[in-house]
Amino acid sequence: MQIFERLESNVRGYCRSFPVVFDKARNAEQFDETGRRYIDFFAGAGVLNFGHNNEAMKNAMVEYINNDGVTHSLDMYTMAKRQFLENFEAIILKPRKLEYKVQFTGPTGTNSVEAALKLARKVTGRRSIVSFTDGFHGMTLGSLACTGNKLFRDAAGVSLNDVVRLPFDGYPGANPDSLETLRFQLNDPSSGLAPPAAFLVETIQAEGGVNLARKEWLLALQDLARKHESLLIVDDIQVGCGRTGTYFSFEDIGLEPDLVCLAKGIGGFGTPLAVLLIKPEYDVWSPGEHTGTFRGQNLSFVAGTVALQYFKNKKFLDSITKKGKIMEDRLAGIVKLYWQSPCLRDDCYCPHNKKNNGVSHRGKGMIHGLCLGHGKTAAAIVQESFKNGLLIASCGPEGKVLKLIPPLTIEDDTLREGLDILENAVKKVVSG
Amino acid sequence: MQIFERLESNVRGYCRSFPVVFDKARNAEQFDETGRRYIDFFAGAGVLNFGHNNEAMKNAMVEYINNDGVTHSLDMYTMAKRQFLENFEAIILKPRKLEYKVQFTGPTGTNSVEAALKLARKVTGRRSIVSFTDGFHGMTLGSLACTGNKLFRDAAGVSLNDVVRLPFDGYPGANPDSLETLRFQLNDPSSGLAPPAAFLVETIQAEGGVNLARKEWLLALQDLARKHESLLIVDDIQVGCGRTGTYFSFEDIGLEPDLVCLAKGIGGFGTPLAVLLIKPEYDVWSPGEHTGTFRGQNLSFVAGTVALQYFKNKKFLDSITKKGKIMEDRLAGIVKLYWQSPCLRDDCYCPHNKKNNGVSHRGKGMIHGLCLGHGKTAAAIVQESFKNGLLIASCGPEGKVLKLIPPLTIEDDTLREGLDILENAVKKVVSG
Amino acid sequence: MQIFERLESNVRGYCRSFPVVFDKARNAEQFDETGRRYIDFFAGAGVLNFGHNNEAMKNAMVEYINNDGVTHSLDMYTMAKRQFLENFEAIILKPRKLEYKVQFTGPTGTNSVEAALKLARKVTGRRSIVSFTDGFHGMTLGSLACTGNKLFRDAAGVSLNDVVRLPFDGYPGANPDSLETLRFQLNDPSSGLAPPAAFLVETIQAEGGVNLARKEWLLALQDLARKHESLLIVDDIQVGCGRTGTYFSFEDIGLEPDLVCLAKGIGGFGTPLAVLLIKPEYDVWSPGEHTGTFRGQNLSFVAGTVALQYFKNKKFLDSITKKGKIMEDRLAGIVKLYWQSPCLRDDCYCPHNKKNNGVSHRGKGMIHGLCLGHGKTAAAIVQESFKNGLLIASCGPEGKVLKLIPPLTIEDDTLREGLDILENAVKKVVSG
Amino acid sequence: MQIFERLESNVRGYCRSFPVVFDKARNAEQFDETGRRYIDFFAGAGVLNFGHNNEAMKNAMVEYINNDGVTHSLDMYTMAKRQFLENFEAIILKPRKLEYKVQFTGPTGTNSVEAALKLARKVTGRRSIVSFTDGFHGMTLGSLACTGNKLFRDAAGVSLNDVVRLPFDGYPGANPDSLETLRFQLNDPSSGLAPPAAFLVETIQAEGGVNLARKEWLLALQDLARKHESLLIVDDIQVGCGRTGTYFSFEDIGLEPDLVCLAKGIGGFGTPLAVLLIKPEYDVWSPGEHTGTFRGQNLSFVAGTVALQYFKNKKFLDSITKKGKIMEDRLAGIVKLYWQSPCLRDDCYCPHNKKNNGVSHRGKGMIHGLCLGHGKTAAAIVQESFKNGLLIASCGPEGKVLKLIPPLTIEDDTLREGLDILENAVKKVVSG
Repeated sequence: MQIFERLESNVRGYCRSFPVVFDKARNAEQFDETGRRYIDFFAGAGVLNFGHNNEAMKNAMVEYINNDGVTHSLDMYTMAKRQFLENFEAIILKPRKLEYKVQFTGPTGTNSVEAALKLARKVTGRRSIVSFTDGFHGMTLGSLACTGNKLFRDAAGVSLNDVVRLPFDGYPGANPDSLETLRFQLNDPSSGLAPPAAFLVETIQAEGGVNLARKEWLLALQDLARKHESLLIVDDIQVGCGRTGTYFSFEDIGLEPDLVCLAKGIGGFGTPLAVLLIKPEYDVWSPGEHTGTFRGQNLSFVAGTVALQYFKNKKFLDSITKKGKIMEDRLAGIVKLYWQSPCLRDDCYCPHNKKNNGVSHRGKGMIHGLCLGHGKTAAAIVQESFKNGLLIASCGPEGKVLKLIPPLTIEDDTLREGLDILENAVKKVVSG
Repeated sequence: MQIFERLESNVRGYCRSFPVVFDKARNAEQFDETGRRYIDFFAGAGVLNFGHNNEAMKNAMVEYINNDGVTHSLDMYTMAKRQFLENFEAIILKPRKLEYKVQFTGPTGTNSVEAALKLARKVTGRRSIVSFTDGFHGMTLGSLACTGNKLFRDAAGVSLNDVVRLPFDGYPGANPDSLETLRFQLNDPSSGLAPPAAFLVETIQAEGGVNLARKEWLLALQDLARKHESLLIVDDIQVGCGRTGTYFSFEDIGLEPDLVCLAKGIGGFGTPLAVLLIKPEYDVWSPGEHTGTFRGQNLSFVAGTVALQYFKNKKFLDSITKKGKIMEDRLAGIVKLYWQSPCLRDDCYCPHNKKNNGVSHRGKGMIHGLCLGHGKTAAAIVQESFKNGLLIASCGPEGKVLKLIPPLTIEDDTLREGLDILENAVKKVVSG
Repeated sequence: MQIFERLESNVRGYCRSFPVVFDKARNAEQFDETGRRYIDFFAGAGVLNFGHNNEAMKNAMVEYINNDGVTHSLDMYTMAKRQFLENFEAIILKPRKLEYKVQFTGPTGTNSVEAALKLARKVTGRRSIVSFTDGFHGMTLGSLACTGNKLFRDAAGVSLNDVVRLPFDGYPGANPDSLETLRFQLNDPSSGLAPPAAFLVETIQAEGGVNLARKEWLLALQDLARKHESLLIVDDIQVGCGRTGTYFSFEDIGLEPDLVCLAKGIGGFGTPLAVLLIKPEYDVWSPGEHTGTFRGQNLSFVAGTVALQYFKNKKFLDSITKKGKIMEDRLAGIVKLYWQSPCLRDDCYCPHNKKNNGVSHRGKGMIHGLCLGHGKTAAAIVQESFKNGLLIASCGPEGKVLKLIPPLTIEDDTLREGLDILENAVKKVVSG
Repeated sequence: MQIFERLESNVRGYCRSFPVVFDKARNAEQFDETGRRYIDFFAGAGVLNFGHNNEAMKNAMVEYINNDGVTHSLDMYTMAKRQFLENFEAIILKPRKLEYKVQFTGPTGTNSVEAALKLARKVTGRRSIVSFTDGFHGMTLGSLACTGNKLFRDAAGVSLNDVVRLPFDGYPGANPDSLETLRFQLNDPSSGLAPPAAFLVETIQAEGGVNLARKEWLLALQDLARKHESLLIVDDIQVGCGRTGTYFSFEDIGLEPDLVCLAKGIGGFGTPLAVLLIKPEYDVWSPGEHTGTFRGQNLSFVAGTVALQYFKNKKFLDSITKKGKIMEDRLAGIVKLYWQSPCLRDDCYCPHNKKNNGVSHRGKGMIHGLCLGHGKTAAAIVQESFKNGLLIASCGPEGKVLKLIPPLTIEDDTLREGLDILENAVKKVVSG
């Protein structure tokens, strides 16, 4: 590992938690250069919804490469893109009666968010964006202004402007109906809070600590946005593409965002792709107004088209719900066994601390969080798990929440094996 | 093409100039779905330095995929990344006696620039960045603030702060030594221009119209940066990786940037990859302070490692110089034949207009620009070329400059064939 | 009035409500050019705490002018300034055991606020300021960023950055303890709200609608500021200098602000003067770092010194309390007589609407507000009062709150006469 | 002086150069508390154009006060304001065929500038303002962004946005026609410099070092502004009101600014007053959109009306020219006697250094600057002058320029006496 330590910037992060050199991977398993096996509960931070080296995707990609398919095409038309669009329309949009225009932005989530911010500002002629406590939206300056994490924000070195931050649903200290104050503010011409260009929200804050907004809160937010002619942007980058048991995280709650940011899982195989979905009436871009060299990623189109096939029938989504239940039950058991009460920390700013009758585990579909109350506890469990062959990462403020996001395609046995490792690690760290 | 028009956002651009659906590609040729052949003088906006579907890269990638190599790994260690780093150190850094730390940022050029801006601000504790007229650095908010193009800037919808713009070398109206005013300003405590965190410069402004800075200007800029403890950032995204006949565009002029942004060609095959090179003393990042889901692109490492082999000996670089000469000679001929004098437009703001003894073509290595004085003329030539089987794009203010950036691996015959098509198009448009 | 309409900018405001030309004034009475008398419940927006043309001040000023005293002196030392400082120290600071350095900023309230913001940022090295819904702090860009009013904010034409706005005490929708959310946010490193340079607060929001913060809220805010090493700035520009029945509005509640902004009443006679009080440990200004041509206003020092004498004994403060009681009782009667319940408007965003068990009048000392629920009602009462010889102005969101701020020196009879006019106007407008 | 040192903030400045307590003043003389006399070449930083305690003004003010005239009136109509407006129209605007609306802003120069910036942004719908190297426009955040001085700028503690700074006429290093680059930039859609809301310029930069813009430069700037539909704002705060030998500094060169900022001298007696003049077509303010408590200063109207009488005939303006000639001749002599060549400093960033055939003294009417090349030399001369009874201040970068701005009403003998003191101080400091 000398070359990494000698040559790579100090900025490297995950490799410090998992200090081995990985070689191969297959579905929910990774192997290091010594052949050691790890169960993957992290899935590349939510990219690998369909597992590592998904066989059907491999075949499609290899065939495409061997046939000299166009790999890089900016935003020119290619057959791979056509196929992707046709499938996306037929499998995702039409059955859900959704009408969206598709913009291929630069191939990272942050680029999709930057495009959404620009477009919302153009549509409304307004400048400010409302984002929420503990939200995560990316590292480039526009997205970063919407992100809550202090380490990331301070790295900007400049003021992060034109964004107003409000408490996310369930944030401690707020009214049960945390939008009540906002409702008054938007009516009050002296409140200092003018109707924004957009509300940018995650239905489940993944990096922020696996915080779930309630359906009624999201719908009330949408109502407010409509009333004040602000756009509603859902950042579905980490919890879209099937993660919650539906394709979009918001489709089972009647939410109809004006703009939807997708990335991570959309490319299927782990190669970059990002998309902004735009209600047709808001597709007011001039040609070329937001560009990006890598906005046409044909290998991602090829694998992404394969990924879309998973959503052709209910079976796959049902399997997510089923596996999610396995995860939830096990986490409930862990909490019950190893803690007297959910979260014991009085000053905990986690939206789910005991003051809010919170529980220390929560989730939906196949994203689950286990709050340990303290970052150090979480970090110790991550290390203990790794020692025993499980890749899992922490998130949330102070990194105190373990986030479980295995590939949606993980085998039941592997899932249970991973949960065993996790339970043992919790046991060892908490009891020890 | 109906699906594109129905489903893709209005933002799409290049596909409007080249309204066909591309299917296959090989080195400097693309083929549309009807089998029609196009010579590629655009190379994916400078990404495909080593041609489409480079055979050696194809083989390496297919093997990697078939062997279940790790594709997506965030910033964890992989064998593919190790191989890339070892080769980059051995082939690029060591022979040039350069010491840089390597940061893999999110895989697009703009992300590398955003990282550079953050780091320069962190190192210096200052906020402002100096960038230059007609510079292009990306679409996300931080990079966009450094970009000159009005269409792109206006799309931000917010003020683009903390950036000061100065005239690039040769900008009309400026002194021959255009840094003279700057020199006084930086000494003058009332000038309103404090020493910036960094100067962000392209040695050749590619998107800006193929504007070349002179060696003495770049060295003087470096001197000023050193004197005022500002960092010098070279954005080598479009003209690095061999484009100018050296690996870095700056290595033959004695420039030693503190930070270097690379992307486009670095991944070899057209899959995304971006890199920030950092002088070791400025690698002050905290772990994880700038992240990005797709910062570990193993397919790009695999193909990128193949690409690095081109630079093992002088032969490849010599071929660039040779082919560049072919391009230059032909452009000189075109200018001579079809225009009385270089640029006839009195109010032309192109840095190379007649007031500056400019010529209407300029370039270095295998990037060349042909200034037509008017965007419409350039657009007409692009269309005429396309009709005759040549892909070429315009750049610069008003899009009045044709930019020639074929793959560095283009065959001499194909290059000449493309130049023939171009000459005929010029002839037809200018005479007609 | 032709000359005004022909020559003055359209920006003029109060003269539209009171379309006469004023000639003379004495204590709480103004007279127009036809000799018509008006009782003044507005006092120059809270400047004329000691009445128009206060006799003792007149004598002092005329003597000063006749003796060729220095009128304009920037920040040089003058005898008039010395006298003012000595009296301010002896009469105000010492008896209250307050230690503050005195900065004479440019002579307007907004300038004092701008100085406070700069200093708080310098002391802490932080950039963001927390201000509150419905707060008013001035019109220049720094202060304006802290002001809530949309008409004023929009006039900036640029983004108002580096300010975070939170709900003021009692703002509808917020928890009874509206600082609870803030408390969590400041502890939560992912909340997106970092500890600010300062909290900028009015103990009573005068322009914002006569909203009173509770003692416990202000003390809790101070605790938070101390804990997070943020400065506490009290903007006492409109409610300081005796208005609430104490010299500082905060002195009877145990608040110890780090910085205090004073203006309006401090100059005594209606000539400009503004002051920033600074805890000695925060007086980190470099010489001349914040300047202003008119920062040494000797006529204001002369009259201001006279004004300070009012605070030598309790009698004057007692009279404020007594007259305040007269105002309060009468307003309570008006509310009872003419409305069934305090505020009938369901969607009212006034902090004192019925949802909060609010009452439609509130106040302290000699500042009182009467909320009419609708701006049009308030405006009609202002007009009806004016017709009958009373100058009164509205404030708050939509201008729906009548603000009563007569000179503190108003005679009891004149006060009652004014309240009679007001009551009749309310009767006419509400019944009619 | 103990009370000042004990109680006043460390920010105090001029009192450090002139450490005495002033008592009385009359025309161009000030007297300290010991009766010591000082000749005033500073005039309150250009406020006291008509001398200290101008007799006619004294009489008018005392009469006004004794008659209970309204002193403070916000922007209500008063007889004093009417008289001022009538005289301003009849004496200043009409004879010059100027049509301007008059806005009384808060009574300081910076407030007039802030109003101008807002209005220009509102009129044009643009955000950026162009200001110039070494310009000075005030201390509040909006004006400060336009000011060049680093000490002042750094005190902001936040980024100063939405302002672009360009070289002032004659700034070293720039082309003789320093607007040439700007001309290209404004035509070039990729230059990064969009046409601004306004150009904000001083015809003579007073605080910036007494730098005079040439007529042709100012007219060319105006042409550019017109062509690109930007407003031209002249900040005439220090050099208007007669200082240059005409009422407006720009009236003898054919400049027709869209907005003009006036303050300092406009109030006549040294009490605050500030005005924004607005071409009628740009008076698009909504009522009350920019306010300020002290925007109606009746004592300043009374004295200011007296001041306007000076401009009724040519005699007063002629006397300025004559006295200006005395100053110029003497400064030329001083330069000739005590320096071999104008400015000996090679790296001098003063716009008038030898590289530009500059001279080390320059001026117009009764504002003159004497550049000493080094701030320490200037400071020593200020101290030596003060010892000998002359008040004079330095300005410009590093404070290296002595600025001579005595009252316009100074007696010839007193002027000569002051120049004698100055010459002796120069002699002593330069020879010693």
